[in-house]
Amino acid sequence: MTDRRRAWHPVPRGLTLALLWIAALARPAFAEDGYDLWLRYQALAAAQVSAYRAQATEIVLDAGTPSRAAARAELLRGLTGLLGAPPAVRDRATTDGAIVAGTPASSPAIARLNLDLGNLGPEGFLIRSLRVDGHAATVIAANTDIGVLYGAFRLLQRMQTGQSLRQVDLRDAPREKIRVLDHWDNLDGHVERGYAGNSIWDWWKLPDYVDPRYTDYARANASVGINGAVLNNVNANATVLKQEYLLKVAAIAGALRPYGMRVYLSARFSAPMEIGGLKTADPLDPAVRAWWRDKSNEIYRLIPDFGGFLVKANSEGQPGPQDYKRTHADGANMLADALAPHGGIVMWRAFVYSNENPDDRARQAYTEFKPLDGQFRSNVLLQVKNGPIDFQPREPFSPLFGAMPKTPLMMEFQVTKEYLGFATHLVYLGALYEEVLRADTQARGKGSTVAKVIDGALDGHALTGMAGVANIGSDRDWCGSTFNQANWYVFGRLAWNPEQSARDIAAEWVRMTLAVDDAVVQPVVGMMMASHEAVVDYMTPLGLHHLMGTGHHYGPMPWDASGARADWRPVYYHRADRNGIGFDRSSTGSNAVSQYAPPVAARFEDLKQIPDAYLLWFHHLPWDYRMRSGRTLWEELVRHYTHGVDEVKRLRATWTGLEGRIDAQRYAKTAAFLLIQQHEAQWWRDASIAYWQSLNGLPLPPGEAAPAHTLDYYQSLAFPYAPGR
Amino acid sequence: MTDRRRAWHPVPRGLTLALLWIAALARPAFAEDGYDLWLRYQALAAAQVSAYRAQATEIVLDAGTPSRAAARAELLRGLTGLLGAPPAVRDRATTDGAIVAGTPASSPAIARLNLDLGNLGPEGFLIRSLRVDGHAATVIAANTDIGVLYGAFRLLQRMQTGQSLRQVDLRDAPREKIRVLDHWDNLDGHVERGYAGNSIWDWWKLPDYVDPRYTDYARANASVGINGAVLNNVNANATVLKQEYLLKVAAIAGALRPYGMRVYLSARFSAPMEIGGLKTADPLDPAVRAWWRDKSNEIYRLIPDFGGFLVKANSEGQPGPQDYKRTHADGANMLADALAPHGGIVMWRAFVYSNENPDDRARQAYTEFKPLDGQFRSNVLLQVKNGPIDFQPREPFSPLFGAMPKTPLMMEFQVTKEYLGFATHLVYLGALYEEVLRADTQARGKGSTVAKVIDGALDGHALTGMAGVANIGSDRDWCGSTFNQANWYVFGRLAWNPEQSARDIAAEWVRMTLAVDDAVVQPVVGMMMASHEAVVDYMTPLGLHHLMGTGHHYGPMPWDASGARADWRPVYYHRADRNGIGFDRSSTGSNAVSQYAPPVAARFEDLKQIPDAYLLWFHHLPWDYRMRSGRTLWEELVRHYTHGVDEVKRLRATWTGLEGRIDAQRYAKTAAFLLIQQHEAQWWRDASIAYWQSLNGLPLPPGEAAPAHTLDYYQSLAFPYAPGR
Repeated sequence: MTDRRRAWHPVPRGLTLALLWIAALARPAFAEDGYDLWLRYQALAAAQVSAYRAQATEIVLDAGTPSRAAARAELLRGLTGLLGAPPAVRDRATTDGAIVAGTPASSPAIARLNLDLGNLGPEGFLIRSLRVDGHAATVIAANTDIGVLYGAFRLLQRMQTGQSLRQVDLRDAPREKIRVLDHWDNLDGHVERGYAGNSIWDWWKLPDYVDPRYTDYARANASVGINGAVLNNVNANATVLKQEYLLKVAAIAGALRPYGMRVYLSARFSAPMEIGGLKTADPLDPAVRAWWRDKSNEIYRLIPDFGGFLVKANSEGQPGPQDYKRTHADGANMLADALAPHGGIVMWRAFVYSNENPDDRARQAYTEFKPLDGQFRSNVLLQVKNGPIDFQPREPFSPLFGAMPKTPLMMEFQVTKEYLGFATHLVYLGALYEEVLRADTQARGKGSTVAKVIDGALDGHALTGMAGVANIGSDRDWCGSTFNQANWYVFGRLAWNPEQSARDIAAEWVRMTLAVDDAVVQPVVGMMMASHEAVVDYMTPLGLHHLMGTGHHYGPMPWDASGARADWRPVYYHRADRNGIGFDRSSTGSNAVSQYAPPVAARFEDLKQIPDAYLLWFHHLPWDYRMRSGRTLWEELVRHYTHGVDEVKRLRATWTGLEGRIDAQRYAKTAAFLLIQQHEAQWWRDASIAYWQSLNGLPLPPGEAAPAHTLDYYQSLAFPYAPGR
Repeated sequence: MTDRRRAWHPVPRGLTLALLWIAALARPAFAEDGYDLWLRYQALAAAQVSAYRAQATEIVLDAGTPSRAAARAELLRGLTGLLGAPPAVRDRATTDGAIVAGTPASSPAIARLNLDLGNLGPEGFLIRSLRVDGHAATVIAANTDIGVLYGAFRLLQRMQTGQSLRQVDLRDAPREKIRVLDHWDNLDGHVERGYAGNSIWDWWKLPDYVDPRYTDYARANASVGINGAVLNNVNANATVLKQEYLLKVAAIAGALRPYGMRVYLSARFSAPMEIGGLKTADPLDPAVRAWWRDKSNEIYRLIPDFGGFLVKANSEGQPGPQDYKRTHADGANMLADALAPHGGIVMWRAFVYSNENPDDRARQAYTEFKPLDGQFRSNVLLQVKNGPIDFQPREPFSPLFGAMPKTPLMMEFQVTKEYLGFATHLVYLGALYEEVLRADTQARGKGSTVAKVIDGALDGHALTGMAGVANIGSDRDWCGSTFNQANWYVFGRLAWNPEQSARDIAAEWVRMTLAVDDAVVQPVVGMMMASHEAVVDYMTPLGLHHLMGTGHHYGPMPWDASGARADWRPVYYHRADRNGIGFDRSSTGSNAVSQYAPPVAARFEDLKQIPDAYLLWFHHLPWDYRMRSGRTLWEELVRHYTHGVDEVKRLRATWTGLEGRIDAQRYAKTAAFLLIQQHEAQWWRDASIAYWQSLNGLPLPPGEAAPAHTLDYYQSLAFPYAPGR
C-alpha cells in the first residue's frame, strides 16, 4: 500500500508560493502569519479613525489588579492599533471621549453613576454612553474585574467591526456558566486529534519557564468569553496529578487567571492505584475516597481557583467505576464530594459505548445514563457530545438532550476537525453548532431546543456549560489554518450565548480577522456558511456516517471491515450490500428512534417526514428507493457527492476572486489549502462511488463523471504518518 | 520513581514573567520572539545611519534569476530596516553610494570592471569600493548568482556589526565544499534529539503547501554559508524514497534552491527490500545495484540538483553492507556509483560500534575504517563525529582525523544539545568546535590540525565538508532558546572557514542578534566563551564522559548499569570503584592511545604530559592520585564540579546586569533558562558527588558543600516525558 493521494500533480505548485515569498521579503512588513487571530487591531480607515478618536480620547481604568491591568493593556493596545496613536491613560475623566471602565468598588466614578448592575452576574458587563464628571464618556461597568475585561474586549470588537460608539446602551452576560476548551494534549506534547502542531503546554520547561504564549492564549479566549481550559487529554495520564506536575499546572493557572480562565484536569479514574499505591480505585472504598479528597486538597492549596475534573470513564478502554460494579453516578459523585468543599465541579462524559454490548452503538449512552437521572451530585455536569456517535460531519442531536431533566447536561462540541479533513479543509463549524443548538428535542413541547436544555432554561439548572475540543497547537497560527481560527471563535461566542446566529458570528470574525471591507465580508461569510453542507455532501451525504479511514480518521474507507472492534468499522455503519444501504434505527431495526421524545421519534421513524439529511442514519433503504425529489436513492446519493465537490470548486473560485483584497500570506495559504480540499473532496466522492458501485453494480446516473481511479487504487492508499493519532 | 527535579521552588516564579507580559501587551511593539534570528535588521543608531546612507543610496542588481532576486530582496529588506528607509532600485548606477552587485554575465557594469574573480570559485565573492560608471560604488561581484547572494549577506553583516563601508576590499570563498545541516527529523514530525518543537518539514501538507518558513530557513542558512540540508533522520525510513515523498522533497528543494541550498536524504540501506520488493540489499547484488541506480535516476528527474545520500549503516541496529558480509566501502561505493552520473555524493558515517565487539567502544570506528582507506569512490565522504564516542561535552578528537589520508573525511558536529542540557542550558558550542578544529593530529607533523584535515589542505582533497546535526524545530525561535541560535550561526561560519575564531564569531552574532552596544557585546561574549568549560565542569570534568541518563540523555545517572547494552551504560565509561576512577585507554588498558599519531599518543599516554581535560578519558587512577595542582584527584574533581556551578551563577549575574539593555522578551526567557541551568548544574554536581562518595567513602574537601539530597533521592528521579527521544 502506498500514499499516492498527492500524486495528482507532477510538479509541486507550492513553489510559486515560495517564490512569491521571496518577493514579499523585500519589505519588512507586518507578518500576517495568523498569530494575532481576531485581535489584530490593524489601523482602521481614516474616516473611521476620525469618528472613533473623539470617543476614545483617554482611558480611565484603575489597573490595581491583574485582570484590570489586562483590561487596560488591551484597551491601550487595541486603540493604539486601530486608531494609530495611543490614547491618554488617566485616573479620572478630563475631557469628552473618555472610556471609563471598572467596578463600583474599584472606580469612584462608576460608583457615583449608581448603575443597575443587578442582573449582570459575576461575568456580565454593560457598555453605555453616559456623562462622567461632566464629560461625555463611554462607560464599561461590571460587578467584577472579569466583567470589566469582557466589556473592554467587547468595546474593541465593536470598533473592529465598524459599529458606532455613539449612544451605546449594551448589557450582556453569559448564558452558560462553564465555557471550556478541552485540550486532548498528552504530557509528551502530542495532541490527540490535533492538526496544528504540538501542545502549546511546554510541560518540560514548566513551571520554570512560563511561555508568554499562554497569556496570548488567555487573551484570545477572554475576548470570546471562554472561561476555562481542561489542560490534558480525556484519555488521561495519572502523572498529571503528581505534585511535580501540579506545580506546572499551577504555573499555567497563574498565567490564565488574570483573563478569567480557570484550569481543569482530566482525571484518570485509576490514579489512586497508579500514583497512590492503592490496590483499588473502587469509588465506594474509603481509602480511595480519602485519596481523592487529599489530592483535591493538595490541588487547591496550589491552585485556589482550580475548576475541577473532566472524566472519561469506562469508554474505549479507560478505567471507571464499572470496573468495580459501580455506576457512573457512584464514580462521579465520589469525585464531586472531594471537590465540593473547594467549589470544584466534575464534568463526567456520557461518551460511553462498548463493542461487547450487542446493541446499536448510537443507543448505548442513553441506555446507560438515562436511568441515572437524578442520582448525580449538584456539582456534576454530564458532558454529552452533540450527536449519538462521534463528531461526524452530521449527526442528529443526542437523544440524551432533554431526556435527563434532573441532571445538568453540558454540550461537548469538537472544534478540531478529526472527521472533517483535518487542518486543510475549510469547514466553518458554526453552521454545525447552530444546527444542533437549534434542534428541537420537544422534551417539554415545541421550542425545547438543545440550546435551552444546555443553558439551563428548560429544566431550571444553574450549573450549565459548553465544552469544545480544542483545535489549538503550537503552529504559528494556533489552529493550522486561518479558517480554523473561526471555529475557535464561534465556539466561544456560542458558549457565551447559544442562541446567537452562526452567520452573524462569521461576519464578526471576518471583519476582525480578514478585512472590514464588505466586498470581502459578504463572499467570505457565504463561503463559510456553505462549507459545512459541502463537507457533509462530499464525505457522508444523506445521513451516512463513520466511513472514514480507520485509526487516523482521514479520507474515505467505506469498505473497511478490519477495525479491532466491530463498532469501529465503517461497514458496521453503512450496512450496504447489493440491495440497499443505511442503518435501520427505526422501530423495525435498532429502534434508536424510540430514545427521542415521541414527536421527534415519529418524525425520524416516518419516511415521509424524516429530513433527507438523516435518512440513512435511521433507515436502511433499497438503492432504487424513490426520494421526494423523484430521483432514486442512488441517483440522489451520487448527486450529493458531486454537489459537495462542486461547492468546494465554488469556494475556491470565490477565494480566487478575493486575491489582492487579503494579505498575500494568508491568501496564499488558504488558496493552497482549498486546492487540497478540492482534490480530497473529489477523492471522497470518487472512492465512495467506486465502492458503492462494487456493491450495487449500478451505472452512474447520466452526466455523472466516473471515478478517476479504480476501487483497487483507492483501497491501496495508506497514510502511516497521518497526524493526530 | 518520580520527577521531582523541579520541586525546588514551591511557587512558580515564571508567573512574574506572565504578569510582565501583560504589561508589555499594552504596546503593539515589534515582537522580539527570536524568529528573525541574526537577520533582524533593526534600525541602527542615528550616527551610523547617516554614515551608511551615503554608501547605500541605490541598489543596482538585476533580479533575473531566483537567486539574484533573493539577493536583491535581502539587500532591500536589510537596508530598509537598518537605515529606516528603502534605497532606490535601479538598473545602473546613477549616483554616488550605489551598491552594484552581480556576475559579469548578468551585469554589464560588473563585466566592464574586469575584476579578477579567478580564485573565488563557484561560491566566493568580492566586495570592493570602486567607481562604477563614474560614481563611487560598493561592488559585490561573483562568478555565480549564489556568490552574489553570499556577498549581499556579507555586506549586510558588515553594517549590522558596525563595520565601515569605506574602502572595502574583501574577497572570500568557502574552505569547505559541502556545508550541511543534518536534520534528524522523522516523517511523523518528531525530531530525534530535537528540543525545539517538531520538524519544520510539514510532510503531511507537502508538496501542496510549501510553508514560507522554508524560505526563511534557507535565508538564515545562506546568510552563514550553509549550502545543504539532509532532510531526514540518519536512523532512516525507506518511505522517504517513495515517489510520493520524493515529490515532497522536490517541493522543499524548490524553496531552498534560490538560496544555494541542495537537499540530501538519509538513505536506509535496506530500502530495496522495504520499498523495492527485493529479497536482499546486498550491495554487490546486480538487482540491488540496479534498484539504487533507478531510484537515483528517479530522484534526479524530480530534483536535478539533488545533493546525495547520507548513510548510517551497521550502527545501533541500522542495516548495512555487513549484513551481507560486505564492507562499508562496498556499501558506500554501490550508492556512489548510482549517484555519480548525476554529480551526487555519499556521506557515509563512521559512527559505528557494537556491543558484541568486546573492544573499547572508542576504538571501534578507527579499527573498522582505517583499513578501508583508499577503497572509497571519489564521490564518497566519510563523515566522522568530532570525538570517538558520541558528542560528549568534551572528547579528544577522533583518531580517524589524519589517519585516512586517501579518503576525504567530513566533520560531523552536533548543534543540537543532546548531551548538553537540551534547550535550556546556555552552552556556546563555538568553543567546542574551535577546540576540535584546532587540535593537532600531527598526522603530517606539527600543524596537521583537524581543520586542515577536513578542509582538504593536509591531504589534497577537493571534496570536503562539514555537517552539523541541526538544532532547528518548529519553535518560534527555531532553536528553543536565543543562545542556541548562536550554535547554528557558529556552525555555519566555521563550515565556511574552519580556522575562524569562535570568539570573533560570537561577537558578530551578539551584535547581529542582541545589541550592537559594546556594553552588551563584551559581557555576553564573555558568557558564551565561558559556557562550554562550565558545562564540562558541572557534567563531566577531567575527561569523564557518558554519565548522563540512559535513553533520554538528560541529567546525571553515573550509577546506571541497566542499559540494554553494556556500551550504553555509564558504569562502562567511568569504571569507578572504591579505589579509583577512569577508563584506562593507555597501553596498559585498551590502548586507544595507539590509534593517534605517535607524538599525540605519547602525550595522551604520559601522565606528566596529558592535559587534565582528558585525564580520565585515557587513564584509570586512584582517588588519591596527586594532580599537577597538588590536589588529589578527588579534591580536583569536586573542585571542578563546584567551579562549573559557580560559573553558571556568574553567567546569571552577568545576564541580570544586562536587564534593560536587551528587549524584555528575550531577556526574560534567557533569565528563566539560566535559573533552570543553575539548578540543574547544582543537580549534576550534587548527584555525581553523592555517587562517587558512595563508592570511595571519602569526605568532601574542606569548604565544599554536601549534596543537597541523598543519593537515593537522585536515583529516584525519572523523566518519562523527556523530549527528543
